[in-house]
Order: sequence, then structure tokens, then C-alpha cells
Amino acid sequence: MNLKKYINDIPDFPKEGVVFKDICPLLASPKATDYAVDLLAKGLHDINVTKIVGIESRGFLFGLALAQKMGVSFVPIRKPGKLPGAILQQKYALEYGEDCIEIQEEAIQPGDYVVVHDDVLATGGTAAAACKLVEQCGATVVQCNFLMELGFLDGRSKLKQYHLHSLMHY
Amino acid sequence: MNLKKYINDIPDFPKEGVVFKDICPLLASPKATDYAVDLLAKGLHDINVTKIVGIESRGFLFGLALAQKMGVSFVPIRKPGKLPGAILQQKYALEYGEDCIEIQEEAIQPGDYVVVHDDVLATGGTAAAACKLVEQCGATVVQCNFLMELGFLDGRSKLKQYHLHSLMHY
Repeated sequence: MNLKKYINDIPDFPKEGVVFKDICPLLASPKATDYAVDLLAKGLHDINVTKIVGIESRGFLFGLALAQKMGVSFVPIRKPGKLPGAILQQKYALEYGEDCIEIQEEAIQPGDYVVVHDDVLATGGTAAAACKLVEQCGATVVQCNFLMELGFLDGRSKLKQYHLHSLMHY
Repeated sequence: MNLKKYINDIPDFPKEGVVFKDICPLLASPKATDYAVDLLAKGLHDINVTKIVGIESRGFLFGLALAQKMGVSFVPIRKPGKLPGAILQQKYALEYGEDCIEIQEEAIQPGDYVVVHDDVLATGGTAAAACKLVEQCGATVVQCNFLMELGFLDGRSKLKQYHLHSLMHY
């Protein structure tokens, strides 16, 4: 199955000159979605995994599906102010300014083997910040996986110390 | 299985006097998560369903899981400016001011039988707006389902014309 058939190119979104990769056709196909989750799980074959972290909000979709497929915990990483209780925070640079993500402090413990999932690897800033949050909890990032990787934005350079797995490459 | 054991009460979040219902312990348990998805699916027994709509962002979690369990399409409803292509918009009132949600125009067609899913039914404003978006597409809302319903906020009064199914009641 060619997953790229389920990704729509939308020119000039969210701004002029950017070609947005729309995953909605993938979500509209239960077979293609299941196939993608299977491929993500196969990429973790022989790797000890105790938790899947998904980054808000599109990382929630395949993140939880993958966690359910593997029978492990799902942990959300969210935008500021959304998660209750004791939280850890990580800031990261944007093209202009900075952003921030949060995790619940007790969601991940030392000894956990964690997969960080998001739908798209672009510049890598968010994923790198998510990995730092996992490490602040004392746990190990065993892989970062993505539905797709926008190679021309070179997100890999921010994630050199981690194993990466992307189902589609652009 | 008592699902309420997997919901944490967080007092004074996001503001004083509000008790936030945290679903993170549920997501941390693959068995309880699977049980909840099963219950949502059982609540649709004998109902013709062609698509599950999930409301950003926590509605993405169990929305996609339910769609996969039932083997039907998943359609995201998102905050403004997030969905590319031709979109339909629906505004709804908040305690102070208003908010807005969007759907892709071609995601749902006349003849579709649609379930609207979110994690929590509170005042019902978002769910009612989501139902209107589905109907603007010419489709039928066959059920609104939720992990939990905060009965004291009387969201049901805004959703009188729909079948509702909530796994937990508070």
C-alpha cells in the first residue's frame, strides 16, 4: 500500500509558498490508517517500549493508536496550561519567537523506555523539546517516529542522538 | 471494570472552584482504554454508522480509536485556521465571548451517518456546533458520544434532538 496516496498536497497553506501535507484522506481510510499503525509498530520490533508519547494535537491520533496496538501506556504532551497537576515545561525556538510544551511530571518514570510520536517531522523543534521532557523525567527515548518527514527542513539535525523512523519521506 | 477509577479529580484547574476531570490515568492503561473504546462501540450496536467525527484535541484520542474499532472513517473537527482546503465554520457561545470550529467541506457527504465524539460533555456548546457542521454537510448525526458527562452543566439541554451516550456520569 502506498501511503502517499492518502496525503493531500495543499499549496499556500497555512501561508503563501508552503505546501501543507494534509493527513485527512489517511484518517478517512480505516484500512490505510491501520496499515500506517502497523508499520509504526513494526518499526519498534525488538525494541523494549513501555510508553508512547504523543504531541498535541495531531500526534494524539496515531500516538494512541500505536500505544493500543502495542499494549502500552499513552502519555500526552500538550500546549501550555492544558495539563493539570504537577507539570514539566520545555521551551523551544520557532521561526519567530518561541513556543512551549508540557508533560505531567509523574506520567513517565526513570526506567521507562519511551517512543516520541508526532505526525510530521518538520524543523524538529517540537520533537526535540518532547525528547528533553522525557529525559527530564529520567527515562530513555528509544525512538522518535512520524508519519512523514519533510527532509528539506532538516529536522534530523536536531534529533541526531535518537533513532528516527518515518513512514513517508518528502 | 469501573472506568471512574481511571479519572483523576484535580481541584481548582484550570481556575479556582472548578474540579477538572483528568483522563490521563485512563490513557496510561491500555486495558482500560480498550474497554472504554469497546463500550463506545457497543453503544452503537445496531446503528448504521459511516463516519466518526472527533473534536480537537482530546476528541481525537478516542474518536480515532472508535473509528478504527468500527472500521469507518475518522473526520477531525478543528479550531480555526488548522484545516486546509474548503472548510465550513460554526461559531458558538462561551461563558464570555465566542469560539469557532471548522470541518473540511468534502469530509462528510449527504447520506453519511455520523457519530460526533468528544471526551467530555460539559455545557454542550462545542458538541452542538459540531452537530450543526455535520448537518451543514447534509448528513445525519446518529449519536453524540462522550467518555463522561458533567450533568450539573446540563449540556444535554443543547443536544435534545440527538441520541447521547456517555460512559461516565458526574
